[in-house]
Amino acid sequence: MIITLKKNTPKEEAQKIISAIEKKGLHVTVIEGTNYNVYGVVGDTTVLDEKAISANPFVDNVTRIAAPYKKANRLFHPDDSIIDVAGIKVGGQEDIVVIGGPCSVEDRLSLLELAKDVKQAGGCMLRGGAYKPRTSPYAFQGMGTTGIEWMCEAREQYGLPIVSELMSIDKMDEFEEHVDLIQVGARNMQNFDLLKVLGKSKKPVLLKRGLANTIEEWIMSAEYIMAGGNENVILCERGIRTFEKYTRNTLDLSVIPIIKQKSHLPIIIDPSHATGDWKLVESMSLAAIAAGADGLIIEVHNNPESAWSDGAQSLKPDKFKAVIEKGRQIAHVIGRGM
Amino acid sequence: MIITLKKNTPKEEAQKIISAIEKKGLHVTVIEGTNYNVYGVVGDTTVLDEKAISANPFVDNVTRIAAPYKKANRLFHPDDSIIDVAGIKVGGQEDIVVIGGPCSVEDRLSLLELAKDVKQAGGCMLRGGAYKPRTSPYAFQGMGTTGIEWMCEAREQYGLPIVSELMSIDKMDEFEEHVDLIQVGARNMQNFDLLKVLGKSKKPVLLKRGLANTIEEWIMSAEYIMAGGNENVILCERGIRTFEKYTRNTLDLSVIPIIKQKSHLPIIIDPSHATGDWKLVESMSLAAIAAGADGLIIEVHNNPESAWSDGAQSLKPDKFKAVIEKGRQIAHVIGRGM
Amino acid sequence: MIITLKKNTPKEEAQKIISAIEKKGLHVTVIEGTNYNVYGVVGDTTVLDEKAISANPFVDNVTRIAAPYKKANRLFHPDDSIIDVAGIKVGGQEDIVVIGGPCSVEDRLSLLELAKDVKQAGGCMLRGGAYKPRTSPYAFQGMGTTGIEWMCEAREQYGLPIVSELMSIDKMDEFEEHVDLIQVGARNMQNFDLLKVLGKSKKPVLLKRGLANTIEEWIMSAEYIMAGGNENVILCERGIRTFEKYTRNTLDLSVIPIIKQKSHLPIIIDPSHATGDWKLVESMSLAAIAAGADGLIIEVHNNPESAWSDGAQSLKPDKFKAVIEKGRQIAHVIGRGM
Amino acid sequence: MIITLKKNTPKEEAQKIISAIEKKGLHVTVIEGTNYNVYGVVGDTTVLDEKAISANPFVDNVTRIAAPYKKANRLFHPDDSIIDVAGIKVGGQEDIVVIGGPCSVEDRLSLLELAKDVKQAGGCMLRGGAYKPRTSPYAFQGMGTTGIEWMCEAREQYGLPIVSELMSIDKMDEFEEHVDLIQVGARNMQNFDLLKVLGKSKKPVLLKRGLANTIEEWIMSAEYIMAGGNENVILCERGIRTFEKYTRNTLDLSVIPIIKQKSHLPIIIDPSHATGDWKLVESMSLAAIAAGADGLIIEVHNNPESAWSDGAQSLKPDKFKAVIEKGRQIAHVIGRGM
Repeated sequence: MIITLKKNTPKEEAQKIISAIEKKGLHVTVIEGTNYNVYGVVGDTTVLDEKAISANPFVDNVTRIAAPYKKANRLFHPDDSIIDVAGIKVGGQEDIVVIGGPCSVEDRLSLLELAKDVKQAGGCMLRGGAYKPRTSPYAFQGMGTTGIEWMCEAREQYGLPIVSELMSIDKMDEFEEHVDLIQVGARNMQNFDLLKVLGKSKKPVLLKRGLANTIEEWIMSAEYIMAGGNENVILCERGIRTFEKYTRNTLDLSVIPIIKQKSHLPIIIDPSHATGDWKLVESMSLAAIAAGADGLIIEVHNNPESAWSDGAQSLKPDKFKAVIEKGRQIAHVIGRGM
Repeated sequence: MIITLKKNTPKEEAQKIISAIEKKGLHVTVIEGTNYNVYGVVGDTTVLDEKAISANPFVDNVTRIAAPYKKANRLFHPDDSIIDVAGIKVGGQEDIVVIGGPCSVEDRLSLLELAKDVKQAGGCMLRGGAYKPRTSPYAFQGMGTTGIEWMCEAREQYGLPIVSELMSIDKMDEFEEHVDLIQVGARNMQNFDLLKVLGKSKKPVLLKRGLANTIEEWIMSAEYIMAGGNENVILCERGIRTFEKYTRNTLDLSVIPIIKQKSHLPIIIDPSHATGDWKLVESMSLAAIAAGADGLIIEVHNNPESAWSDGAQSLKPDKFKAVIEKGRQIAHVIGRGM
Repeated sequence: MIITLKKNTPKEEAQKIISAIEKKGLHVTVIEGTNYNVYGVVGDTTVLDEKAISANPFVDNVTRIAAPYKKANRLFHPDDSIIDVAGIKVGGQEDIVVIGGPCSVEDRLSLLELAKDVKQAGGCMLRGGAYKPRTSPYAFQGMGTTGIEWMCEAREQYGLPIVSELMSIDKMDEFEEHVDLIQVGARNMQNFDLLKVLGKSKKPVLLKRGLANTIEEWIMSAEYIMAGGNENVILCERGIRTFEKYTRNTLDLSVIPIIKQKSHLPIIIDPSHATGDWKLVESMSLAAIAAGADGLIIEVHNNPESAWSDGAQSLKPDKFKAVIEKGRQIAHVIGRGM
Repeated sequence: MIITLKKNTPKEEAQKIISAIEKKGLHVTVIEGTNYNVYGVVGDTTVLDEKAISANPFVDNVTRIAAPYKKANRLFHPDDSIIDVAGIKVGGQEDIVVIGGPCSVEDRLSLLELAKDVKQAGGCMLRGGAYKPRTSPYAFQGMGTTGIEWMCEAREQYGLPIVSELMSIDKMDEFEEHVDLIQVGARNMQNFDLLKVLGKSKKPVLLKRGLANTIEEWIMSAEYIMAGGNENVILCERGIRTFEKYTRNTLDLSVIPIIKQKSHLPIIIDPSHATGDWKLVESMSLAAIAAGADGLIIEVHNNPESAWSDGAQSLKPDKFKAVIEKGRQIAHVIGRGM
């Protein structure tokens, strides 16, 4: 960490700052500049709060050199983490996983039919929202517990582990018991109380990136879960908010190589929410695979026109199958199974 | 609502869409265009889900004409709402309120001292965080219940209603019992389960705007609370994320006249979090008053250099007093008390 | 175009608006809503200025249904445009083109050597900046005319058409005479006088997307050039500004399928400027090909460490060759040559 | 400037980097960290190009401590710059200036009438666009030279200095001869060739902030003009692009105290373009004055409904007068004339 003090800082004030830092077990070195004095802080700087330091009126600027995360940091954990989701391995050189299913679970029969289609197309997990984060209080809010029960039934029948979004700490027991991969949605990426509760679980967590969050903030949210004791975190990019109007969000595929540089956690891509348009899902899926993603999570629906939410972004099962088949060939080129 | 169908849409497909909408009690009129056919939907369109309609492959575009909110909408509630916070009126032509206090509650004595300073300077409520949303799991997470107790003690001694942030539904009872104005932080603006719980309370809610949310989304979050039965919502602008690096966030003061056009709810401004720099707080406070804000919420600290969080943005009590005094004169020019 | 009038609009005021539009040869149909009246405008709405219409105090909202561009619009030109750059075809089902070269031309010998490397690796055009848009007036501003001369020499020796950025209308004659593909940089995407001058040329133009511009604005800039008479426009995505700090810009690969939907113009990708980091260039190049790009423009340098600008994002020639070889296999999977 | 090298950097590689910097007359000090080595560079770092340094594969990160601008920097020029526009002083403790006029000049008589209104209302300069940057090639592009001639006639009749936008270097002579304050529009803020030409002029320049540019980039554009020899630069904030849809842009009033901290140049505010809505202009104008702006530039039109561009954001003259009158009282509170 680099702390810049104004040139006119009295010696005793500078000394106070240095002492406070050294008390926490860190070392400080000074460089005298023309217009500023610069202090280099050496040691485990995750214990320092840059905002608190900036509060000092003599401090001009505080810059972190080392990343503020430890457990999620590739630097201290050089090997890829491989996360086990009910027997399916995600990350490292494991096969690329494809998760398919409806945005929200709507009725039992069509869910079971869809699970069969996902399975036959080559999907390896079933997604489905039972609790839905909706911008409007007047929109469909999800089937709740019933939805989770139908998901469990589909799992039993087709052997697909299930993925569903947890929105609130009071449903944690239900998810702990029934769901194989617990999704944290984009709007809850910084719902720190939810992250803390997940940190006490052993269930794998699919952590979506927030709509306007940086990669560093996203990894810090993973760090929350890991710091609590649960290291089974899979990151999921689902598009960020930009000024573009022709897509719902902007899919940021550069996160794939970046996450692999900065962290050891697996990274999967959600092209459906990112684009909001099924016509873009195939090209973005293939691009994600070419860029090195560890998996895809894709919305599939038998009858998108009559879906209760997000039908516009859902693939029909035959199209989903086609994406997997083409994707497998791309995976082959970059030396990966799928 | 305006629905645009592609020119080549078969008549029976168009008819299906029209019927589905008419079944919900709305009227549909068609305009035949050169390259598109346009359907105008008349009636209470809050019952329609534009995403579901967009899912139809023949639909090119769906545009809302009327706002998606009802209870928070000025159109259906032309008079200003005035919210009563433990006897203090906020909104309409009531006096501009000033809320002061530390970012986070740290120790009992300095909180009590600060409460006295806030009171003497002319502040009318005391803010103080007991539960803190922190990006890092390694940062100070707040004093919790003890912090709330100290806040209550300060209220008793100085007669200032207290404002504090609720982060999780499991603390709702504590806040319902002790806190006068329950704050929802920017990161929880779309924590819909939290909003639903607040909708069942009668306590006034201070709803902060999310870091990258539009005004419409913000009002929709107010609508969540109001739809649950609690109409005591005060909106609070605290800066949005932009590309600018010289300020922590960008304070959007144009929300003041916009909120007054679109909604009847009061709007107050937080210049401390918006700028992240105490040196900008005075000018932004005066600007907010000149623009017609119903109140200010300002961080005040006796010893900002040693604050445990966000010291850089805290005013010392004498500076806080100076802001109120100058602000009162500006308020006078625009015909408002303070 | 849909125009929404406030419910209380006097009939004669509404009639004035209708008449003004009908005078321009368009038709207007009215839909009476509950809180608004909606007017549908049918015909060539590119002649209408929505801002001028919005100025009327009775107008609540104006929404375009049809895109504001004509010549660049796929709707009126269903076949892919194929642009000829000194004999090399770009777009449609033609082979994917790869353009390589230094960010800025620095010295004659290393440029010639690099041109040889680009050629041998499988590149089909040579890029090189002679005029450089630099944020600081104190930074290297480019070799100017000398740089263009060296580029011409390299073209002569290795048969590679050359690509270079035009920053100002007073160099148009020089570029018209010497450069095969004239680049418009991101910062000049809305330099309308430059676009107008290029509209009078016959030389192909490589139009980069602005840092914070929407796809619609980008296509409108292409429309400027095409409206002037020059239909030889190739679009180039080079990353947009977002809040992310781990990459210089955020590469938006969803533009590839979007551009192919909305327009008939070719689209190529610049992974070097988009990421600002050579370590991300391979994965983003492969992703671009998988997503259907018509070409890549990549920075290559023999000695990136000592480059005068943007060395951090330059590939060494052997790495560049490796990207082309892997890319060719991906292209094969999606049925395209390279 | 702080340069961070990876821990495994060979000594001779580190030495190369140090030598290259020392050759430019700067000093380098090293701090050995746990995972990185940090080099502090002392001296005039504006001569260093951080991108070039980052290109070195052993460099992890480069951070500027001192601002990259010199001539515009308050640090080296502590007194406020006061710019003289044809006898009217802008900046420092001078009276707040108000510039009024139409977005674009449309016809002679209404311009003359409007100039009279601006003068009578208390405006001290006349604005009017003769060359217009329009997103669409099919929109009205301005009256050109005729527009400038009418502006000159209005100046002669009412004694108001004139402000107009220069879009292209080939009109520089016309502007040098006729225009008192040459405006650089938001889209041309980084049209570096235009900035260089203005640097050779002596005419004052009104430099608008780009739609998505940081304050640092904006000051660097001022630096371009100043480095060329023309120190008569006035900065103008006109709103930045954000995700908000209820306003055209988001007016960033925090630039006012920031610019006054970082630079000595005057700063004026354009509430008309920022909001795109005349109903927001009064509140934003008063807020700008309360925040310490050196001036306002406001669109005024006698008949906004029939304006050829941007009518929606224009005030009628009587409303303009009312803003000035209220503004004067706010100015008085903060100790400034107007």
